[in-house]
Amino acid sequence: MAVTSTTATSVADICRSARRAARELAQIDTARKDAALAGIARALIERTEEILAANALDMEAGREAGLGDALLDRLALDAVRIAQIAGAVQDIVALPDPVGETIEGRRLPNGLDIRRVRVPLGVVAVVYEARPNVTIDATALCVKSGNAIVLRGSSTAAHSNAALAQIAARAAVAAGLPEGCIGLVAGGGHEELAQLARQNDTVDLIIPRGGEGLKAALREVATVPVIYAASGNCHVYVDASADLDRAQAIVLNAKTQRPGVCNAAETLLVHDDIVPDLLPDLLRALGEQGVLVRADKRAWKLAEVMTPEELAVGEPLGVVMELATEEDWATEYLAPTLAIGVVDSVEDAIEHISRYGSGHSEAILTCDTDAARAFQLGVDAACVYVNASTRFTDGGELGMGAEIGNSTQKLHARGPIGLRELCTYKYLVTGDGHVRD
Amino acid sequence: MAVTSTTATSVADICRSARRAARELAQIDTARKDAALAGIARALIERTEEILAANALDMEAGREAGLGDALLDRLALDAVRIAQIAGAVQDIVALPDPVGETIEGRRLPNGLDIRRVRVPLGVVAVVYEARPNVTIDATALCVKSGNAIVLRGSSTAAHSNAALAQIAARAAVAAGLPEGCIGLVAGGGHEELAQLARQNDTVDLIIPRGGEGLKAALREVATVPVIYAASGNCHVYVDASADLDRAQAIVLNAKTQRPGVCNAAETLLVHDDIVPDLLPDLLRALGEQGVLVRADKRAWKLAEVMTPEELAVGEPLGVVMELATEEDWATEYLAPTLAIGVVDSVEDAIEHISRYGSGHSEAILTCDTDAARAFQLGVDAACVYVNASTRFTDGGELGMGAEIGNSTQKLHARGPIGLRELCTYKYLVTGDGHVRD
Repeated sequence: MAVTSTTATSVADICRSARRAARELAQIDTARKDAALAGIARALIERTEEILAANALDMEAGREAGLGDALLDRLALDAVRIAQIAGAVQDIVALPDPVGETIEGRRLPNGLDIRRVRVPLGVVAVVYEARPNVTIDATALCVKSGNAIVLRGSSTAAHSNAALAQIAARAAVAAGLPEGCIGLVAGGGHEELAQLARQNDTVDLIIPRGGEGLKAALREVATVPVIYAASGNCHVYVDASADLDRAQAIVLNAKTQRPGVCNAAETLLVHDDIVPDLLPDLLRALGEQGVLVRADKRAWKLAEVMTPEELAVGEPLGVVMELATEEDWATEYLAPTLAIGVVDSVEDAIEHISRYGSGHSEAILTCDTDAARAFQLGVDAACVYVNASTRFTDGGELGMGAEIGNSTQKLHARGPIGLRELCTYKYLVTGDGHVRD
Repeated sequence: MAVTSTTATSVADICRSARRAARELAQIDTARKDAALAGIARALIERTEEILAANALDMEAGREAGLGDALLDRLALDAVRIAQIAGAVQDIVALPDPVGETIEGRRLPNGLDIRRVRVPLGVVAVVYEARPNVTIDATALCVKSGNAIVLRGSSTAAHSNAALAQIAARAAVAAGLPEGCIGLVAGGGHEELAQLARQNDTVDLIIPRGGEGLKAALREVATVPVIYAASGNCHVYVDASADLDRAQAIVLNAKTQRPGVCNAAETLLVHDDIVPDLLPDLLRALGEQGVLVRADKRAWKLAEVMTPEELAVGEPLGVVMELATEEDWATEYLAPTLAIGVVDSVEDAIEHISRYGSGHSEAILTCDTDAARAFQLGVDAACVYVNASTRFTDGGELGMGAEIGNSTQKLHARGPIGLRELCTYKYLVTGDGHVRD
């Protein structure tokens, strides 16, 4: 069995098992992987009762341990959520298989044919916090990309994760995938994390999905390569030449469409020239959406255009405004709060973003081609937008299919980590007796 | 000045300087970078005396410290070697600039235009051992790919490295590159290495060029991403169907053309069926080249075809043969020694390579398409060859231009690390007011 407790099977044994499975998995064709995914989706639906029973144990323990409502909600499963998880697996069946894709190829002057071809990484470890759906989401992406997976969830979701991983592993093996291709490290302690993070001989990559605490813990102990999916302190910069209607629509979308996610905007930068034209209407609209504004002194100058009545109520233009502090520029609110700063040029906007941004998603709204070009050249981030909302930074939206995370580091994968990013490549070189001079 | 001692400038300061320079460097066009490279090459020639004087100090200290001849030779510079170093810089001028290349792009169903474009990593740190030429080779590759570089050489070559880095930094700045784009950490101690390896805010990648000790030291302390260029335990497998003449030529080339490099073959695997046809002539040829053979018992069966005279001299077929032990399969000799094992099938060869190979370069020699396909699918290595020598795994040979190392890890770069591999990418997304539903 792929899913066992650490008392019976050590972290190293689970990883070795996964390594053996990975060798076989790398050569399995798309049809068989897709059949396994379909089998996993089916098994999740068929065994919903079993999953809910396991989840009830976690929920009960969570309540006893005094978990907050938000955490309990993230932990909770019901039939609808399980159906959604199964649906997401089915969606991955429909995605193209990245394995075997020729990335580039040519004939060298000496006649050698060289092709760079995508192949699975091998063994991917995913360490994650409360959400049990990650168990299946991550597993499905790894199966499709031909990787064995080692899961290490949190102890809070131990029963749910064990049930889900066991169902997935059984369905995968029943469909002809190798034993051990889906492994779960039972025990959510630091000791297991540290062991997993040092299995250099068997694990090719660790992807953490969780808060800063988890990432900091990993950074201290990991010798296996890790892709850190950092937070998103995203900016929208409205240039002097921007179309005002578009700008308002995009700012509202970037801030309010889903404020709790990493690609939501946290700071609005406005060119000084258009403060009086843009901000009053925009602030009214933000106020209607219940957004709290933390504005710098220069943004407050729009008070000049306000009526005495508006000023008197302390909520000018119907929006709650407070004076921004240095801390605001560095804060990822993940909430309906927006920092607003005024800048004098696109260069100042780039400078601000370079200083405070986290390299996730940055947008310029402009009708000026030079400003657009300067921004796309000068801003160092995974996704740089011209006249579009930052909310598009998402594997699904960008046409890459599902994603296992969103990387803000520069090595290997930047931006959404989809099926291709779960792969490496090898050079296939073919000759007819070629030797080197 | 970019080049100062750690007593005056801390490792963190050098890295911060490099980070500032990197922002500017990322946007500098190809012509200016090429002019800087040409200036560096010129300055190296013009200031040869100065470099030789610095090198003489290192050589003297090295002799006093009792360095061996091989190490002293790696440390030594002369006018010819300096001209070669300058010539290598000129060669990099001729390579295409990877920055700005569109890797892929398309229009999404909602009309957003998305392009994935190559951009510099930012700040690359290179830590290396005795060879002072690495100072310039690595610098030139980083300049061309728009990266700032932080160099940390060994104390053995401190004077040579300081002279070379200073000359390069001055020439770069004179050609209009930003101050700080070429930084050298003076002091080759573990303390500086540990500091450098933890500059997560300013350094994007560390590339070690040196022995296993250096890599092990880095692995323990690094929090910055590292690409490890592991050793090459490379195999040539001669299949039952191989063309014997080609096979002999390729084995000789892979083993003897330059035995001390990572892409030289260390183990020959021979299909049982062709042992009597292949080995006697091949062994004679290896013997003529002075290769020591460590063969398994099954390879010794070729003794059946030897004459009593050949056996009597203890050097059958003119080659010195010894019985291979388990250790031989795992050894990267980097010397004119070849392990020979006999296998029963391509599957057995793949299994052997999977167990002992280091994922560098592996070759099958065969006329059988099924065997070729099975080998290329089943062997997990950076370069997998059919009917060609493993010696082609080299950025120059594979058409990528110069390389800064050869990666055997799977993340980011596998195989030769050239200009492209010193880059990351960003997504440039352009709309006309796009918001997410």
